[in-house]
Amino acid sequence: MSETNSERQKVVIVGAGFGGLTCATKLAKAGNVDVTIVDRHPYQLFAPLLYQVATGGLPEDDIAYPVRAAIPGVDFVRGEVVKVSMDAKNIRLEDGRVLYYDQLVFAVGSEGTTFGVPGVAENALQMKNIREAREIKNRLLQTYEDVETGAKPKEALRVVVVGGGPTGVEVAGAVSEMQRGMRREFPNIADFASVTLVEAASRLLLPFNEKSSAHAKKELEELGAIVKVDSAVDRMYPTDVHLKSGEVLPAGTIIWAAGVAAPKQWAELGETDRANRLKVNDTLRLRDDVWIIGDMAHVITESDRPLPMVASVAMQQGRYVAASIQALIEGKIIKAFSYKDKGQMATIGRRRAVVELPNGMRLHGTPAWFSWLGLHVFYLAGGRNRVSVIADWFWNYIAWGIGPRRTVID
Amino acid sequence: MSETNSERQKVVIVGAGFGGLTCATKLAKAGNVDVTIVDRHPYQLFAPLLYQVATGGLPEDDIAYPVRAAIPGVDFVRGEVVKVSMDAKNIRLEDGRVLYYDQLVFAVGSEGTTFGVPGVAENALQMKNIREAREIKNRLLQTYEDVETGAKPKEALRVVVVGGGPTGVEVAGAVSEMQRGMRREFPNIADFASVTLVEAASRLLLPFNEKSSAHAKKELEELGAIVKVDSAVDRMYPTDVHLKSGEVLPAGTIIWAAGVAAPKQWAELGETDRANRLKVNDTLRLRDDVWIIGDMAHVITESDRPLPMVASVAMQQGRYVAASIQALIEGKIIKAFSYKDKGQMATIGRRRAVVELPNGMRLHGTPAWFSWLGLHVFYLAGGRNRVSVIADWFWNYIAWGIGPRRTVID
Repeated sequence: MSETNSERQKVVIVGAGFGGLTCATKLAKAGNVDVTIVDRHPYQLFAPLLYQVATGGLPEDDIAYPVRAAIPGVDFVRGEVVKVSMDAKNIRLEDGRVLYYDQLVFAVGSEGTTFGVPGVAENALQMKNIREAREIKNRLLQTYEDVETGAKPKEALRVVVVGGGPTGVEVAGAVSEMQRGMRREFPNIADFASVTLVEAASRLLLPFNEKSSAHAKKELEELGAIVKVDSAVDRMYPTDVHLKSGEVLPAGTIIWAAGVAAPKQWAELGETDRANRLKVNDTLRLRDDVWIIGDMAHVITESDRPLPMVASVAMQQGRYVAASIQALIEGKIIKAFSYKDKGQMATIGRRRAVVELPNGMRLHGTPAWFSWLGLHVFYLAGGRNRVSVIADWFWNYIAWGIGPRRTVID
Repeated sequence: MSETNSERQKVVIVGAGFGGLTCATKLAKAGNVDVTIVDRHPYQLFAPLLYQVATGGLPEDDIAYPVRAAIPGVDFVRGEVVKVSMDAKNIRLEDGRVLYYDQLVFAVGSEGTTFGVPGVAENALQMKNIREAREIKNRLLQTYEDVETGAKPKEALRVVVVGGGPTGVEVAGAVSEMQRGMRREFPNIADFASVTLVEAASRLLLPFNEKSSAHAKKELEELGAIVKVDSAVDRMYPTDVHLKSGEVLPAGTIIWAAGVAAPKQWAELGETDRANRLKVNDTLRLRDDVWIIGDMAHVITESDRPLPMVASVAMQQGRYVAASIQALIEGKIIKAFSYKDKGQMATIGRRRAVVELPNGMRLHGTPAWFSWLGLHVFYLAGGRNRVSVIADWFWNYIAWGIGPRRTVID
């Protein structure tokens, strides 16, 4: 799309997530480099709302933003990167294509990890992409259908969510609300449904203040969820989760939200931490022309405490790298990356959320929920998606308890 | 759900479409009979908008309305009916369950038919349910991806739609607009895309006035579609449609919109016409307690010209049967069904439609399109779906040509 010019630097960005797209947008605005984004999917996944798709709150189209032609002047190549040759300055795609770069921005994000717990891969559903979210939704809804016709026992309606971080809390809350909604459609069996949230640590939302953790637990319990802290999972089977304490939790559906890690295949590029994140210097680089951002990056600092794997970090890093590449071109000095803490938030249900601002302020309940809602709608990339999501949420909000739930399709 | 009373008549309605749901709603309001709806899906399919799902204009959730608990006081049974025993007054489901009735309302709708044209079943995509519409959408969008990477030849971007009735015209128009939208996202290949609409008769929209037919053809051609009338299909192969004239149309995607028929399996219940419709008397009955409505019914009249297989007919018949069952209970005489012509409409594209009112009035272009839009939004069963559909259409409308298209997911 953009005119090729031998003087212009070629920037290749791998990964069309929050980090990669933010970086591309900023570079495209500067207009003095050729930018190519590579991704295996032609859409940006709005991952923070995957749990809404998994529980029937939003259609999947609402969280997939078509990325081709999304940023004027930026080329898009669909493909899976299988090799990075830093000495030859190129990347190789699965189909054999080779793309050369002057600057490489690597931003492929993270994936679910089982931490080696036996039985997770075979028996638990993960939730890191749309296919997996769809699988959870179909399982949750189809189970009601199957229990209703007698094809499955009533115990199949028990859901166990493993992992008390923001994702686990969000899923457990949304499943709980979905189960309430089902009382109207399946009055004979809905009372057998339950959701249990299991967390190994002594409280939910470990990175949050203890008061927020306690609030989240209380809110989940008000919604009818069972919360088990200090409960590490030992192993799991198709219909049972075994805790290290010896307790056995029967489950028709097991959702694993206990951890994410960077893809292991890129460990060869440098030194990694336990979550396979590549350790980068304070300019987010492995070497002069290779930048690592987002969930993949472990920035070495004095405290050596890695930044959280969230969209806000990835976006700040994407902007930083775009500005740094501009500085390189202009022969200026590149300043070290410094993270500006934007606080953290987790939603529990309708008008139930916890928000912590960097100034120490904490919001709970309705105000927290509205700020969560506003922020997510604001960050949804596409105008079309934003309109649909608002419509769907608006409807969810006004029709709570009387409106129809999503249904099993085909 | 409703209290069982030995005095109360048990009405079983097979099929949760426009006819069945209208009948159930009206019977539930009367409140003096026990109503059970049986359907193989737990949702009502809004079939008139299937083509929008097939061309990426609407997410599939928007046209599937959860039907369990949709009508207070009406029971829902999910299952596939495999046998109707009119003498024993019961129906049998696939899983062996048997439901007894006092009054049976049979409203299972229609399905696609190939009219025996060789190659249709193997090579053409049909569009009678959500799975099929999803298949068309994935094929259309994935072809762009495959041509872009070289996995498929550019000729794969040619689409042939067979059948110049309202469905074929709607699909051809929507494909044409989708292909226009793709120019921005696939600038290197989009010009190779085309859509050809093939109709055996001498004009499109045969049941409409000739002026409407001519208008539809002109509008389609303005959108860039190729319209071939007097062109009967002889046979088809994976990448070719052969016309009876000997002409061969190369095609990457073939969409068959040439005809629908009632499911053949119910022909055993009575006398049928060429489209497998059951011939019923002027009270829509096969016998005193068996009512046939909607696409399945061929009402015997003096002209013996069957009514069109559209939602408006099914809904009128559903209301009529509900009222007639009430009349039976009250010992009143049942009047003959009389169809009130509501006119007909077909949309071609954005602000392009033809509408014919029963008084002979014809609307074209923008006013026709807005009345089409209004009517469809009005008839979408669920409030939630209505909100989403309006949001999606609103966005389509304001973002035309600049907004993102739906994308291939996974």
